[in-house]
Amino acid sequence: MSHSHAEEHFRSTDAVRDVVIGMSDGLTVPFALAAGLSGAHVATSVVVLAGLAEIAAGSIAMGLGGFLAARTDAEHYQNELQREIRETRELPAKERAEVEEVFEGFGLTPEQIEPIASTITANEKRWVDFMMKFELNLEPPDPSRAVRSASTIGASYIIGGLIPLAPYFAAHDLDTALIASVAVTLTALFVFGGIKARFTGIPVWRGGVQTTLIGGLAAAAAFGIARLFR
Amino acid sequence: MSHSHAEEHFRSTDAVRDVVIGMSDGLTVPFALAAGLSGAHVATSVVVLAGLAEIAAGSIAMGLGGFLAARTDAEHYQNELQREIRETRELPAKERAEVEEVFEGFGLTPEQIEPIASTITANEKRWVDFMMKFELNLEPPDPSRAVRSASTIGASYIIGGLIPLAPYFAAHDLDTALIASVAVTLTALFVFGGIKARFTGIPVWRGGVQTTLIGGLAAAAAFGIARLFR
Repeated sequence: MSHSHAEEHFRSTDAVRDVVIGMSDGLTVPFALAAGLSGAHVATSVVVLAGLAEIAAGSIAMGLGGFLAARTDAEHYQNELQREIRETRELPAKERAEVEEVFEGFGLTPEQIEPIASTITANEKRWVDFMMKFELNLEPPDPSRAVRSASTIGASYIIGGLIPLAPYFAAHDLDTALIASVAVTLTALFVFGGIKARFTGIPVWRGGVQTTLIGGLAAAAAFGIARLFR
Repeated sequence: MSHSHAEEHFRSTDAVRDVVIGMSDGLTVPFALAAGLSGAHVATSVVVLAGLAEIAAGSIAMGLGGFLAARTDAEHYQNELQREIRETRELPAKERAEVEEVFEGFGLTPEQIEPIASTITANEKRWVDFMMKFELNLEPPDPSRAVRSASTIGASYIIGGLIPLAPYFAAHDLDTALIASVAVTLTALFVFGGIKARFTGIPVWRGGVQTTLIGGLAAAAAFGIARLFR
């Protein structure tokens, strides 16, 4: 009961984490870039242009990056699995000793460990699964995760990025657009940070404040840098 | 021997992953943004300005994002630890049954499990540690990881981002700067992708090609979008 609850908790976390990764950066970086360029008093059309270029670049970089990271995790798991299979065949005494070590850590006596180690090492699949999970701490990856992860991160980045840019599309006066963008985006960051906090288990208001602060700091830094160098 | 080897492998992976996260995006996104703006024929100074603003925003967003992610992981571990401590006190029979289930999963008989479960549940710390590892599959997080992770990601982003921008500082002709930036950055992405591949265990040439492709695609998309909307 508690076990299946924990597993469910972790499955939902994967998808949520992808939305969080994409949307956090999508809300923050295009927002900060637009604010920075506004600080340098470029034309509104340049702000929109740079913002859209950033969203295109960022969503592709993050989406494909997520795809490759997930695929690399899967390959890493397969490599380690093959290594464990080879080791249980070529160095069975050493691998059996490693099984025993895991249980020694929990204070069991050699007499108690003996039958456990014998049962586990009697079956190759069981033995290898044990080593993967408890020696290397690796869980079998979900094969469809790479594609799903890429599209979730990329789409979240685009959606997040269009929110701070929207006011620059609508208003032709740069100062008005900047103020509206700051208001809309900080609100969105606060709401998003709060929702995110519900999934990660930290207090909702703290999640909102943290996320708003990151976005605000990034925008302030971009604004300052652009002022400095204009 | 193999165990300490595995741990070392994973420790180095944490730092390498942070450099990879920061530098991949640092090389890719400012590069693509600068290429995109070049495609829209804005002034070279605007490209530099937007690039610097993006580096400031991106490094803060990613660095602080990494800090909070590491801290949330640590808090998640603590929350689950407290929950397990509470459960071993309030529902000892249920928690002991969960210990027994773990060994049933390994194919032990009830007679073999009985003394093992007694030994593990005789000591609260041992019992809770066992549940954390075998039921929830959580390892204690490294307390200094959050700060180290934030600074590594942020610094890698800045270093990565200055590479594609450097030609725009030097050249005053936009086309020359764009060509130089593309050449320098695609080379850097290839070398970086190859180095990264050595750590993740995929073939070096494939790592180089993949990383170059992501950067190239992101830049091409940004270039196309900026052309379209200029």
